[in-house]
Amino acid sequence: MKTLESYVKAIRDFPKQGILFRDVTGILESPDGFQLALDKIVGILAETEFDLVAAPESRGFIFGAAIADRFRKAFVPVRKPGKLPRATISETCELEYATTTLHMHSDAVSPGEKVVIVDDLLATGGTAAAAARLVERLGGEVVKMIFPIELAGYDARGKALARYDVETLVRYDGR
Amino acid sequence: MKTLESYVKAIRDFPKQGILFRDVTGILESPDGFQLALDKIVGILAETEFDLVAAPESRGFIFGAAIADRFRKAFVPVRKPGKLPRATISETCELEYATTTLHMHSDAVSPGEKVVIVDDLLATGGTAAAAARLVERLGGEVVKMIFPIELAGYDARGKALARYDVETLVRYDGR
Repeated sequence: MKTLESYVKAIRDFPKQGILFRDVTGILESPDGFQLALDKIVGILAETEFDLVAAPESRGFIFGAAIADRFRKAFVPVRKPGKLPRATISETCELEYATTTLHMHSDAVSPGEKVVIVDDLLATGGTAAAAARLVERLGGEVVKMIFPIELAGYDARGKALARYDVETLVRYDGR
Repeated sequence: MKTLESYVKAIRDFPKQGILFRDVTGILESPDGFQLALDKIVGILAETEFDLVAAPESRGFIFGAAIADRFRKAFVPVRKPGKLPRATISETCELEYATTTLHMHSDAVSPGEKVVIVDDLLATGGTAAAAARLVERLGGEVVKMIFPIELAGYDARGKALARYDVETLVRYDGR
């Protein structure tokens, strides 16, 4: 059986010169790779009680929606400005290559709800930290954060996500 | 049991004045709504042989990825320019509010593969038609297109998607 690592392709100089991009689409675009990643996430969550999955656009939607479905939970999209049609709250976040603002519907999380945040790749953790602040402002609790790929060189676990329970499937030491 | 319609909220003047926006997030953000929509799509696909699911970003990823998982198929993202890291092919498409270009990895579909296209909402069908052209240029066959919400007033079935087998879950006569 192939390892999950074997589905992750390294792309040089994307999205800009000098970046070695870890490409999660190699997992998705293989039926075995996608099942392997989702099965591993299900294993991580086996003992976790939670009410819903929140995930940032766009690649976070792919893993987040499938995991919400596997556990029969609600799926809450975390989106860029102008995308969510109802009343939202927002948080600004620092990304690896830019700064952006993320929104969540104000009624998407109720006080006391337990939330799992899923995204495709953990770098600085800025996106996930902003998503967590949105959940917390609505009275929810982030019980776990899950990322198929981790770039450990950014030290998100020691910095932006130090307060959270972070799980990843494939870890790279660099950036 | 609630109908799927009851989860779809109508939002006035979004994303711009005069538009009555049919909001699919009401389905997603309810565990029962999301399961109901996915179960209906599974029913539609019960007799369909296919190899993979392709879906346009971003809301298409949500339904598309969950359906790919339910059938243990590959998930192929159809993305805006600059998002896919490997070699792509592209098609321009007319949207309801703008024109854009959609990309697919050149190796994402192999000749002879049968593809289901999933998106959240059918309006003009321009996005789905562009996704279908990408599949066909790679030698694949689009065996079905599925959308939870249909705005029948655009007549996508008679125009942009006339060649395709289109299935929707909730249909509105207007635009």
